[in-house]
Amino acid sequence: MTVYLVGAGPGDPGLITARGLELVRSCDVLVYDRLVSDELVTEAPDDALRISRDRFAQGELSAVLVSLGRRDLEVVRLKGGDPFLFGRGGEEALALAEAGLSFEVVPGVSALHAVPAASGIPITHRGVSSQVTIVSGHEPDALDFAALATAPGTLVVFMGLEALPTLVDRLIAAGRAADTPVAVISKGTTAEQESVVSRLDEVVEAAAHLRPPALTVIGDVVALAPALGAPNTSQMASRAEVATR
Amino acid sequence: MTVYLVGAGPGDPGLITARGLELVRSCDVLVYDRLVSDELVTEAPDDALRISRDRFAQGELSAVLVSLGRRDLEVVRLKGGDPFLFGRGGEEALALAEAGLSFEVVPGVSALHAVPAASGIPITHRGVSSQVTIVSGHEPDALDFAALATAPGTLVVFMGLEALPTLVDRLIAAGRAADTPVAVISKGTTAEQESVVSRLDEVVEAAAHLRPPALTVIGDVVALAPALGAPNTSQMASRAEVATR
Repeated sequence: MTVYLVGAGPGDPGLITARGLELVRSCDVLVYDRLVSDELVTEAPDDALRISRDRFAQGELSAVLVSLGRRDLEVVRLKGGDPFLFGRGGEEALALAEAGLSFEVVPGVSALHAVPAASGIPITHRGVSSQVTIVSGHEPDALDFAALATAPGTLVVFMGLEALPTLVDRLIAAGRAADTPVAVISKGTTAEQESVVSRLDEVVEAAAHLRPPALTVIGDVVALAPALGAPNTSQMASRAEVATR
Repeated sequence: MTVYLVGAGPGDPGLITARGLELVRSCDVLVYDRLVSDELVTEAPDDALRISRDRFAQGELSAVLVSLGRRDLEVVRLKGGDPFLFGRGGEEALALAEAGLSFEVVPGVSALHAVPAASGIPITHRGVSSQVTIVSGHEPDALDFAALATAPGTLVVFMGLEALPTLVDRLIAAGRAADTPVAVISKGTTAEQESVVSRLDEVVEAAAHLRPPALTVIGDVVALAPALGAPNTSQMASRAEVATR
């Protein structure tokens, strides 16, 4: 049988793909991330085996998927966002390929653009930004801040809340303007979404109350948010009420 | 009523979101891009008004959406990929906001990662690439090739087929290694998907037979394709046969 590496999307359960939802609804085993919404876990058949990914380290997880893939079972590995954009799906896919197992990648809507959109921010916009740089805040020491500070367009940082003070200090030290617009969006596209729009030298204080997971957007596109951030500019109106915006 | 700016995804009709498909199936008016699959246009109700976006320039299009938004109609503006990542959805959203009209952005799966995934390429991969730079090939003269040539990680070029010779020459002139792995993927995730994997100094010749729209991926992650590019690594097996891979 096949192991499907399926992107669940950024949080709002309505943002899974039609193909992904179809696979969840017909699977024998669902292996799901902590960030996947309960609504999607519930979509699996009543008699499907549900396994939380939190029980395993990444290496163990790949072994579990290989083990499940060897049985006569349809396995859906449901990951937050997209499997191949900071989703570590490549590691799972490689393990399956090396074991000679059949697998299929079903991409998901990434937080990259969906979470900013939920705060009224297009990460590209004609005349404002035609380039996007994406990094992870997990290992700020690995980043080239001189290059990031001068890169044109929009900078998007995944999982950057803990490292935010470091990111801000190093970007400003490397020459990024202190008044560069910045948005930090926590739990984007879910009912608990909360965001702040600030400037580079003030964002650490402004975002102090936010909780992970969060996405940080740095660049002039953030200045479009007041014009586009109306309550209706919401991806998640589909399934949940906006608690905070 | 509301105007919905909906991302159709990268090509495979199964990759529209559940929420987006629901809106298409209940709309009064569907305004769709040329790159949107016929299968999705067909999903609109039989009596829905279908308007091809090709009939209008971008400025006219925004005016059409405002005009439709003023009526008692549910309007779905269905765009290829995602509305806010090289989708020019920000311009349409601003026009609607300025007219005081209700709108909602429903993000879509972007070609950014979905098209490389369909060729077995994760654009990030632990130990290989933890940074992604995204540019458009439409205006190569606007790009900073010195910075792009030295940026770590993966470089993804949207719509870069026409400019490929220019991109390659300038990246190599700016110091990017001639043997950097490159993939060019035409019509990714559709039944007409065709791709080449090559190196920077040979890709122009290797990709000469490809037709737009195409996505170009430059960086070491491309070297993962042989291990991950099995026929089952396909997003579009859901609805169509793979003609060429």
